[in-house]
Amino acid sequence: MKTNPGRFFEDYRLGETIHHAVPRTISGGERALYHALYPARHAVYSSDEFAHGLGLSTAPVDDLMAFHIVFGKTVPDISLNAIANLGYAEGRWMQPVHVGDTLRSESTVIGLKENSNGKSGVVYVRTKGLNQRDEVVLEYVRWVMVRKNRPDAPAPGAAVPQLAPVVVPEAFVIPRRLHFTRYDFQLAGEPHRLGDYEIGEKIDHVDGVTIEEAEHMMATRLWQNTAKVHFDATFREDGRRLIYGGHVISLARALSFNGLANAQMIVALNAGTHANPCFAGDTVRAWSEVLDKSETSAPGVGALRLRLVAVKHGAPQFALKGADGKYLPEVLLDLDYWALVPV
Amino acid sequence: MKTNPGRFFEDYRLGETIHHAVPRTISGGERALYHALYPARHAVYSSDEFAHGLGLSTAPVDDLMAFHIVFGKTVPDISLNAIANLGYAEGRWMQPVHVGDTLRSESTVIGLKENSNGKSGVVYVRTKGLNQRDEVVLEYVRWVMVRKNRPDAPAPGAAVPQLAPVVVPEAFVIPRRLHFTRYDFQLAGEPHRLGDYEIGEKIDHVDGVTIEEAEHMMATRLWQNTAKVHFDATFREDGRRLIYGGHVISLARALSFNGLANAQMIVALNAGTHANPCFAGDTVRAWSEVLDKSETSAPGVGALRLRLVAVKHGAPQFALKGADGKYLPEVLLDLDYWALVPV
Amino acid sequence: MKTNPGRFFEDYRLGETIHHAVPRTISGGERALYHALYPARHAVYSSDEFAHGLGLSTAPVDDLMAFHIVFGKTVPDISLNAIANLGYAEGRWMQPVHVGDTLRSESTVIGLKENSNGKSGVVYVRTKGLNQRDEVVLEYVRWVMVRKNRPDAPAPGAAVPQLAPVVVPEAFVIPRRLHFTRYDFQLAGEPHRLGDYEIGEKIDHVDGVTIEEAEHMMATRLWQNTAKVHFDATFREDGRRLIYGGHVISLARALSFNGLANAQMIVALNAGTHANPCFAGDTVRAWSEVLDKSETSAPGVGALRLRLVAVKHGAPQFALKGADGKYLPEVLLDLDYWALVPV
Repeated sequence: MKTNPGRFFEDYRLGETIHHAVPRTISGGERALYHALYPARHAVYSSDEFAHGLGLSTAPVDDLMAFHIVFGKTVPDISLNAIANLGYAEGRWMQPVHVGDTLRSESTVIGLKENSNGKSGVVYVRTKGLNQRDEVVLEYVRWVMVRKNRPDAPAPGAAVPQLAPVVVPEAFVIPRRLHFTRYDFQLAGEPHRLGDYEIGEKIDHVDGVTIEEAEHMMATRLWQNTAKVHFDATFREDGRRLIYGGHVISLARALSFNGLANAQMIVALNAGTHANPCFAGDTVRAWSEVLDKSETSAPGVGALRLRLVAVKHGAPQFALKGADGKYLPEVLLDLDYWALVPV
Repeated sequence: MKTNPGRFFEDYRLGETIHHAVPRTISGGERALYHALYPARHAVYSSDEFAHGLGLSTAPVDDLMAFHIVFGKTVPDISLNAIANLGYAEGRWMQPVHVGDTLRSESTVIGLKENSNGKSGVVYVRTKGLNQRDEVVLEYVRWVMVRKNRPDAPAPGAAVPQLAPVVVPEAFVIPRRLHFTRYDFQLAGEPHRLGDYEIGEKIDHVDGVTIEEAEHMMATRLWQNTAKVHFDATFREDGRRLIYGGHVISLARALSFNGLANAQMIVALNAGTHANPCFAGDTVRAWSEVLDKSETSAPGVGALRLRLVAVKHGAPQFALKGADGKYLPEVLLDLDYWALVPV
Repeated sequence: MKTNPGRFFEDYRLGETIHHAVPRTISGGERALYHALYPARHAVYSSDEFAHGLGLSTAPVDDLMAFHIVFGKTVPDISLNAIANLGYAEGRWMQPVHVGDTLRSESTVIGLKENSNGKSGVVYVRTKGLNQRDEVVLEYVRWVMVRKNRPDAPAPGAAVPQLAPVVVPEAFVIPRRLHFTRYDFQLAGEPHRLGDYEIGEKIDHVDGVTIEEAEHMMATRLWQNTAKVHFDATFREDGRRLIYGGHVISLARALSFNGLANAQMIVALNAGTHANPCFAGDTVRAWSEVLDKSETSAPGVGALRLRLVAVKHGAPQFALKGADGKYLPEVLLDLDYWALVPV
């Protein structure tokens, strides 16, 4: 057979590294599309002049765009037969990605655990995105539940990796020469500094966006993510296309501009859960909670640890979990990340 | 509160200048998206070679794209609490915008007048778009009706600016080195020169476009216009998203290629009215009327003053106003502008 | 009348060359949009690094994008009054198109034949796409059935060109310096070489895409194709917008990555039929058949002659024609082309 059936749980080996296909050179076109698909307004990604004023050569592409491009390449090898995308950890952005860079991805299998039903198992991979100079631009761990092809296939021995519950500030890789010493709050859109945010503070980002099929498919295709469920209305029994979880991440992050305009660059991803599926027609809103704050080694640059929650319209304010500890049905995303903020 | 509630009528002061947030660097991506979202075919924006033949360095971005980017930045400060966008005047394009330019916007409050009901007022602003060299690339006056936050807030004294009913040709700023002396009518698509158009002549542009939600939202997002009503289907009681008036302007202007292919560059905006709201599913058509003609100081370059009217499918030909002087319900846009045309 | 009514059958003259309007400069934006609109993953178009490794300067734009841009310019002169797009032949890609190139088109009328009903006729044109150096980047013959304006107009004498049933490998123009001697199969996504494909082999490309109105309209507009039937929901009696046949070609070609990832560049188009109309909401799948194989003069570069068939969801596997020799109603496209493949 010439076509790719995807890998099944029994096809993974602990420690193997998979070199994913189809490198991608990024142009201004991807940046413009990102701005057309999401209400993204963080100034460092929008203006070469603003980025230059922070010590960068030009405006990098949105950190989440880099994430999606790296992630998309892993889909044919990791999640084509996935039942669920279970979580993320230890994500770090190692250097900004600029127009002209060519990205590729590789993933190392760092954990495998068969489910007790014998029909599937959990695969843990550490994925790295590399540029044309073979420098790592970002890395993250994710784990997915993957079907077995043959229920009687022998399962590899269980190995569950120890993952850090949070990326500590000492592990941040701040972009070279980045500083917020001449940060222009007026051009950035809000006056709030690190010191203006309190741990525990919650911010309702107010705005909402109703999603169309064409938009989430164009976004997901742009990342060369090939998962059938996002594109083929005949794939699910209910005739609905499931929206790529990363689309919701980017949408929520963009909405969070309103209240977090100065949370300019994402430096680490601590954890993330796609709590409920999202479909076209849903109106998505977002709220954030300040989980922690930190200084960094770069001049004028602090960091906010933020919980970013995407919800469907109609959710109670700051909706998250019910008394049973489970996510409320209106919650789409619960993301835990660090962003760089002027002190 | 960290999020932006927008300004209310009582928050404006006559003479103040607001520096709008989020500068934007333009790439070929924005240009390609403009061509994907509108049936734009004017050759000067489409081909570097054609533009070079007219004395320009490369093809500038569409003049309306520059307008939308400048306009979009003003929305969070000017029209977030607007009830209606009432009008435009004294618009001038001061120099072409090219790929690589970074635009920002600032608006000066030039007029304020409370409505007699005491619940709202009209704010007049003169907005300038500036590039990375702090040169003005375009400017225009617009006035919007803005809600008051507190009905009892004291209103500033009424001050209504005197606005020119039309930009006179002496005030045009023709792009440096522009000439139409070796204009290629074949590549441009039509043979018609300035002299071929008669004042009073009306042109039915024939073609129609049925608008989709994804298209107008992508366009409006691309301009970083954040007005909720364009994106959030839960915002209006009828569950419909209002289409950004500028989307209709660009659509009508692009449709006007058929009959006005040589009306290459917009040099001034005299007036404009969004006569009725536009929604996804509407099929938009356009017609133009030649209002005036003029020579200019540039070699071979004349100017046509044009009324550009966008209507919904089913409107009577050249539909505009009823016997009562009010716009017919099928009329979406009545725009009055000057464009440069070969003599 | 200032607007373009299009040409009718009686307006064409054998041997005349029509220089089509509106040249177009291509940027990274068009490339990004191509990746957003189609699930395109062939590595040579995606990565400058990969293309450089094959002897090219940078990643060219997708060969079909070049085709669509050249084709789109011909629509106002050739097919505005077309009843049907009947066929293609003798298509050759003469050199890769890169970001920064400016394309224009010209068509020579090589055949004319009135239909027996006297109401229409078939127009054969050889169309060339040229770049800013006046080099031909691609050429093809197509023939369309065009309405007469006046049934009593005298028809030109019948002249039907002799067209090659297939472009022979000796006629291929392989891109200068192209070689597949250090071809990276891992980055390309599949291990299959020329020798791994058998003549007569059929490949079901597995994946499906459900098309949205916004997507096909954005694509078709991007090629500056102005045919009303693609954009105006009021144009057809059934209120449906007909999808540009080229959209289906690009969609099917992109889907064929899964099984033909190494069929990197299109070098010739032998024939093509748009067997049935396609509409938004259709879920499109694709299959291919290996029709022939060949060596080429370039190091490591072979060629596969492929039949690419696009079908609607629900079609029988490898659906093509019925016992009556007619295309099955689920078949959208039957395309015959040559692609370059590593030996």
